[in-house]
Amino acid sequence: MTAEIIDGKAFAAGIREKVAAEVARVKAAGVTPGLAVILVGEDPASEVYVGHKHKATVAAGMESFEYRLPADVPEAELFALIDRLNADPAVHGILCQFPVPDHLDERRTVARIDPAKDVDGLSVVNAGLLATGGDALTPCTPLGCLMLLRDRLGDMSGLSAVVIGRSNLFGKPMAQLLLRENCTVTMAHSRTRDLDQVCRGADILVAAVGRAQMVKGDWVKPGATVIDVGITRVPHPDLPGKTRLVGDVDFAEAVEVAGAITPVPGGVGPMTIACLLANTLTACCRTHGLPAPEGLTA
Amino acid sequence: MTAEIIDGKAFAAGIREKVAAEVARVKAAGVTPGLAVILVGEDPASEVYVGHKHKATVAAGMESFEYRLPADVPEAELFALIDRLNADPAVHGILCQFPVPDHLDERRTVARIDPAKDVDGLSVVNAGLLATGGDALTPCTPLGCLMLLRDRLGDMSGLSAVVIGRSNLFGKPMAQLLLRENCTVTMAHSRTRDLDQVCRGADILVAAVGRAQMVKGDWVKPGATVIDVGITRVPHPDLPGKTRLVGDVDFAEAVEVAGAITPVPGGVGPMTIACLLANTLTACCRTHGLPAPEGLTA
Ligand SMILES: NC(=O)c1ccc[n+]([C@@H]2O[C@H](COP(=O)([O-])OP(=O)(O)OC[C@H]3O[C@@H](n4cnc5c(N)ncnc54)[C@H](OP(=O)(O)O)[C@@H]3O)[C@@H](O)[C@H]2O)c1
Ligand SMILES: NC(=O)c1ccc[n+]([C@@H]2O[C@H](COP(=O)([O-])OP(=O)(O)OC[C@H]3O[C@@H](n4cnc5c(N)ncnc54)[C@H](OP(=O)(O)O)[C@@H]3O)[C@@H](O)[C@H]2O)c1
Repeated sequence: MTAEIIDGKAFAAGIREKVAAEVARVKAAGVTPGLAVILVGEDPASEVYVGHKHKATVAAGMESFEYRLPADVPEAELFALIDRLNADPAVHGILCQFPVPDHLDERRTVARIDPAKDVDGLSVVNAGLLATGGDALTPCTPLGCLMLLRDRLGDMSGLSAVVIGRSNLFGKPMAQLLLRENCTVTMAHSRTRDLDQVCRGADILVAAVGRAQMVKGDWVKPGATVIDVGITRVPHPDLPGKTRLVGDVDFAEAVEVAGAITPVPGGVGPMTIACLLANTLTACCRTHGLPAPEGLTA
Repeated sequence: MTAEIIDGKAFAAGIREKVAAEVARVKAAGVTPGLAVILVGEDPASEVYVGHKHKATVAAGMESFEYRLPADVPEAELFALIDRLNADPAVHGILCQFPVPDHLDERRTVARIDPAKDVDGLSVVNAGLLATGGDALTPCTPLGCLMLLRDRLGDMSGLSAVVIGRSNLFGKPMAQLLLRENCTVTMAHSRTRDLDQVCRGADILVAAVGRAQMVKGDWVKPGATVIDVGITRVPHPDLPGKTRLVGDVDFAEAVEVAGAITPVPGGVGPMTIACLLANTLTACCRTHGLPAPEGLTA
């Protein structure tokens, strides 16, 4: 059997279209969703991400606000900007691109953002809302994985799900989302014993570790849905001096066993920005008491 | 093999002594920890609980403040009281005894309490702190189970833990605590398939369901540590017209298989109030910048 390969790029494009259509709807109601992105310093990778986010925001018909602060900006100045954006009715989503320079603290920075505008879903309040069944803004990458899983599986009730990795950014919120879908959820990590065996029990296997091709074909239950979140750059096997991106899953092996699998690249990756747009729209709708967009939230 | 029977009553008494000793220490530093309990209406069971809490608080050397409000108290009045207690420096912990009458909302009530004084650990902020690895106030019953497990097992790293039940009050925070201890954690619930088999994989099995004797002996891995949180009143098998309390675990069967097991009553139950005292002390120490009490927090 060869697995269905989940086309995250195409699916993400669909989500972005859906967001754009909903943005048109709320604009007709007199509101334009707006996303503010703060970039501190000049990390080249961050510049690229922020550029992509800006383009996607504009393409969806939303307002994009960009703020660039020098690498040595004092915390007080960063916080003054966040306070201003918290109070600005044209801004519905705020994110500070991480990593920030060492003199700044990510936790404190996220905590400064109004939870209702925390479209990265990284604040303590949003984590608590997600954990207790409230209306959270959900971190973008796990939300994207949830959308892919819902599209493929529909009702996940009673399925066994294993999440490898327990970061606040991905693994822990992913586990909460799968629990909400009524999966039996196992959280695995670096201390997990017999990880291969734990994985073999999974109808849904989500890997977010950052170790190239760690999950072997015989770790996968036949027919399982495999979501590969990891991204690692490795030397290209055929082109000396070149590199390529691989996931946490040994794709060539797993594709022979799984029922469906996301490739790297082109699987989970494209969903993150699509979900950032979805979250900005959701935040805007909630603020204005408009119905939440169908199919774009957890 | 017959399991060690974990004596929760004796262990809880030890925790209460430890709290009392620490209270004496902070009093010597000029601060008296204080717990305020709000009771709305006249539910007889709640009266009993509140009475126990009051006694235990005083016995530990702390201040106990009790507020009784009529069953029809308007939310605004309840909130005005909470606001006053939030601002009162003699009060380090606040809890509102649930259930409250139908016209009041538990979520809104908990949200009104300053998270730093939310000694039941039920607020969204404390759930988020627990989920993201911050300094939460942890719900009392799962904290008590954690203490019992640490006492029995020491380092739990790499052990497989299964939690049956996913309430905000118990199951979800219990899973977070076990994850922090580096267990591989599975969250099971009413939709879980093959629950018996899931349980058989557990080195640590925690049941918080509320279904009498649901977990059978052959669900238990030989040598596992079994924590039985459930409490159900059932007809007494030998005394017609009488009742007795049983747990979620078939004790007579499981005691032959497990390595250690909590009985019902006398296992987890007595830990809850002990941990309420511990949380009040912790809240007091944090507020006053005193070192957190050793062995009394997550
Ligand atoms: N847009 C996207 O596509 C996107 C978004 C987010 C992340 N990612 C990728 O996803 C991966 C994980 O990201 P993250 O931020 O969640 O990473 P992270 O914070 O580094 O967490 C990695 C997790 O993997 C666990 N782990 C490490 N070695 C392991 C092993 N040998 N076996 C089992 N578990 C192991 C760690 O366990 P301990 O907790 O025990 O240390 C930790 O929980 C990275 O490759 C990242 O680039 C992609
Ligand atoms: N101080 C103490 O000793 C203390 C403190 C707290 C609780 N308790 C006791 O612990 C028990 C649970 O309390 P709670 O507040 O957590 O209860 P709860 O909110 O009623 O939650 C019960 C949980 O059990 C799950 N469940 C129900 N039927 C099941 C089945 N057949 N198989 C597997 N799971 C099933 C439910 O799953 P779904 O989510 O799918 O519905 C739910 O998650 C009660 O007996 C309570 O009295 C004792």
